[in-house]
Amino acid sequence: MSDTVPNRETIEAAHRLIAPYIHHTPVLTSSFLNELCKAEIFFKCENLQKIGAFKARGGLNAILSLSREQLKNGVTTHSSGNHAQAIAFSAAKVGAKAYIVMPDNSPLVKIKAVEDNGGEITFCKNTPEERERTVQEITKKTGATFIHPFNNYEVIAGQATAAKELMEDSRENLDLIFAPVGGGGLLSGTALAAHYFSPETKVYAGEPEGAADAVLSFRSDKIERAPYIKTIADGLLTYLGDKTFPIIKQHVTDIFTVSDEEIIQSMRFLWERMKLVVEPSGAVPLAAFIKNKDQFEGKKVGIILTGGNVDLGKLPF
Amino acid sequence: MSDTVPNRETIEAAHRLIAPYIHHTPVLTSSFLNELCKAEIFFKCENLQKIGAFKARGGLNAILSLSREQLKNGVTTHSSGNHAQAIAFSAAKVGAKAYIVMPDNSPLVKIKAVEDNGGEITFCKNTPEERERTVQEITKKTGATFIHPFNNYEVIAGQATAAKELMEDSRENLDLIFAPVGGGGLLSGTALAAHYFSPETKVYAGEPEGAADAVLSFRSDKIERAPYIKTIADGLLTYLGDKTFPIIKQHVTDIFTVSDEEIIQSMRFLWERMKLVVEPSGAVPLAAFIKNKDQFEGKKVGIILTGGNVDLGKLPF
Repeated sequence: MSDTVPNRETIEAAHRLIAPYIHHTPVLTSSFLNELCKAEIFFKCENLQKIGAFKARGGLNAILSLSREQLKNGVTTHSSGNHAQAIAFSAAKVGAKAYIVMPDNSPLVKIKAVEDNGGEITFCKNTPEERERTVQEITKKTGATFIHPFNNYEVIAGQATAAKELMEDSRENLDLIFAPVGGGGLLSGTALAAHYFSPETKVYAGEPEGAADAVLSFRSDKIERAPYIKTIADGLLTYLGDKTFPIIKQHVTDIFTVSDEEIIQSMRFLWERMKLVVEPSGAVPLAAFIKNKDQFEGKKVGIILTGGNVDLGKLPF
Repeated sequence: MSDTVPNRETIEAAHRLIAPYIHHTPVLTSSFLNELCKAEIFFKCENLQKIGAFKARGGLNAILSLSREQLKNGVTTHSSGNHAQAIAFSAAKVGAKAYIVMPDNSPLVKIKAVEDNGGEITFCKNTPEERERTVQEITKKTGATFIHPFNNYEVIAGQATAAKELMEDSRENLDLIFAPVGGGGLLSGTALAAHYFSPETKVYAGEPEGAADAVLSFRSDKIERAPYIKTIADGLLTYLGDKTFPIIKQHVTDIFTVSDEEIIQSMRFLWERMKLVVEPSGAVPLAAFIKNKDQFEGKKVGIILTGGNVDLGKLPF
């Protein structure tokens, strides 16, 4: 696996590599929202991506970058969310085995999604230590390659392609792009894409108040943990990694936090007005933009809607 | 208003006329569904259209076709659904008044949508007679032009542009297209678009079992009423008109009925798998296709997802 930060060529290569396997997702607009915010907003609909989230991009790039020899032993990861599906989906594309470690309290719908993609699940207790220990056991036994959900340069280069497409398709020079931040895979990829393909485009992040590690790290200049974890945005609970943090520190302009109430309000707007099923984590960047809209009047704004994997039986409205 | 069936040039002109005001909605695919149905399916996402439904197309074409002189007196219609929004929205675009007659038991969300688009609402009792009488009163008093929701050739030409875009954007010669049928505005427009722009493409319709007038009319060769009205697909309750029926009779290949259970199942698939908010009426053509999928194996199939206006507080799942 690569140990250098993706550059322009790496991201272009990633895009060529994964393009046949992903959806080129549409960019949508809402004149109602534009008027409300006095800005021109372009939504990159990664909720409409394969497996319902942008994670398919990073997973595919990481797995397609492995050698045939490496793929023989399969790949492994631990995740209860979209990354698990992404790895199972991507491994299936190249005919490799995917060993997915999932917490034994994972929602049935997510377990089923991994199984549908042909992933082989090992359950463990839901602690970081148990998850890592179980993955290490699998790696030792099978020789499978571990694909980290975000702290991996191939994953970062894959996620960068979402912003690359957004900048190409919005056919405007975007003044800024909003992405959410959890572990920072998408955010660092977005920041790199802007840096290489549209240097005048600034990148901002939205983060839940109830998982506010990135904003702290960004201010203190070292990787911090969140003071407390309590948010509906269950895809953004992790903290930054030593590969994602330096990129974010260097290329991201600012990080804004939002409350669960603000997240749910934005989510509801996306469902009701834009007819898009977006999960709470995916509504975070819109919430962050709306909260700070006054400073972005007249701007052209890209917003990445990251995913739509949500249990219809458990909606917050 | 035109009294001749739209031809190739009329539909092309309608498309040019409305293009600046509508969304060119995306065409999406699902490899999961393609495998399940052994066909290649292209979804035209009119749920992502302005006002959340294809009706914006017909409304705009009808209103943009009026003279400046006619527009001075405004336009009027009766509708509790997407057509009301479409007329209010379209009238606002040309700075004309829209007098919308709505049943006094209309859902608050639909009333608000018409108001948001600047429509002036007159309430009446929810009977066909009262609705027509109230519109006639308004016409007499204001000189406003009545825009019928479907039995109007400009409306039909406008709706035809959805299938025209679908055939252009799917970049495949579609073997068939599925549309829903209520009053037949979209279905007749779709049938004409296929006839003129892709004559080898057959057009099929889906209709709720609980509003099965079109299938009866299609078989008996005269406009029939439904034996009973009871369906979740509240956008498809009306019967065919003397302008839509002959076009459907001549150019549609067949009409299939589906149960509410089948409609809800397809709707759930669209929300869960495709991350699209689609209203029950909009899921009817997919339900009709899936029910009859065995006869369409190996085919390239267009399906129009007509609208996404649904009350999130009243989901059937």
